[in-house]
Amino acid sequence: MHWQDAIRWNADGLVPAIAQDAATHRVLTLAWMNRESLTLTEKTREVHYWSRSRGQLWRKGEKSGHVQRVREIRLDCDRDAILLLVEQVGGIACHTGRERCFYRRLDDGGWHTVEPVLEDPKTVYGHE
Amino acid sequence: MHWQDAIRWNADGLVPAIAQDAATHRVLTLAWMNRESLTLTEKTREVHYWSRSRGQLWRKGEKSGHVQRVREIRLDCDRDAILLLVEQVGGIACHTGRERCFYRRLDDGGWHTVEPVLEDPKTVYGHE
Repeated sequence: MHWQDAIRWNADGLVPAIAQDAATHRVLTLAWMNRESLTLTEKTREVHYWSRSRGQLWRKGEKSGHVQRVREIRLDCDRDAILLLVEQVGGIACHTGRERCFYRRLDDGGWHTVEPVLEDPKTVYGHE
Repeated sequence: MHWQDAIRWNADGLVPAIAQDAATHRVLTLAWMNRESLTLTEKTREVHYWSRSRGQLWRKGEKSGHVQRVREIRLDCDRDAILLLVEQVGGIACHTGRERCFYRRLDDGGWHTVEPVLEDPKTVYGHE
């Protein structure tokens, strides 16, 4: 059996993938993968996702340069979630210019932004 | 606006929630929440999920005693994923008796179990 056939893809042919920074151990991102993105991730050792909003394959960092290099690919007990241990190039995973996407924390009944913008998104996406 | 209204729930009224161990920083689990489970999680400070397979509310550890105590609740940039920083009681998050659900690693074109069973699941679920 091909290793991808062990995965329980959802009705849209996708699986959620968590990216965790191998150095800081911070959880950076949750995004989605289809078979093609996982194939490319495994072969190139650079993380590829499937953008549900754009409906297209997306090599992480293709515009910003903030590539995620793969150290480990893991699968959970239910075979319906992926964990990626990555080296985050540039130290910025989020399109807002923050280290990671989970920058809002629930405190006193509201979401508060608790992490700084490290680079202006206009600059980040001006790399191309 | 109620803080839960900021979340982009999916068509089934669910959002994926990642549980990360606050002490070891390991990613333990990816599970799903509905509004009720998130409300209870916030109020009781113990993680509640929505079991998609059983179609019911599920207090993590209700049978095993392996409760997850909440330290932080975070929301991502797209407002469609939750990150929970938790204290994992008993040091076992997975129903297989392992520390965490992500115990399979992709090596040489196949999934390999790389984490040990810490407690026999029969014992774990014999607590009740």
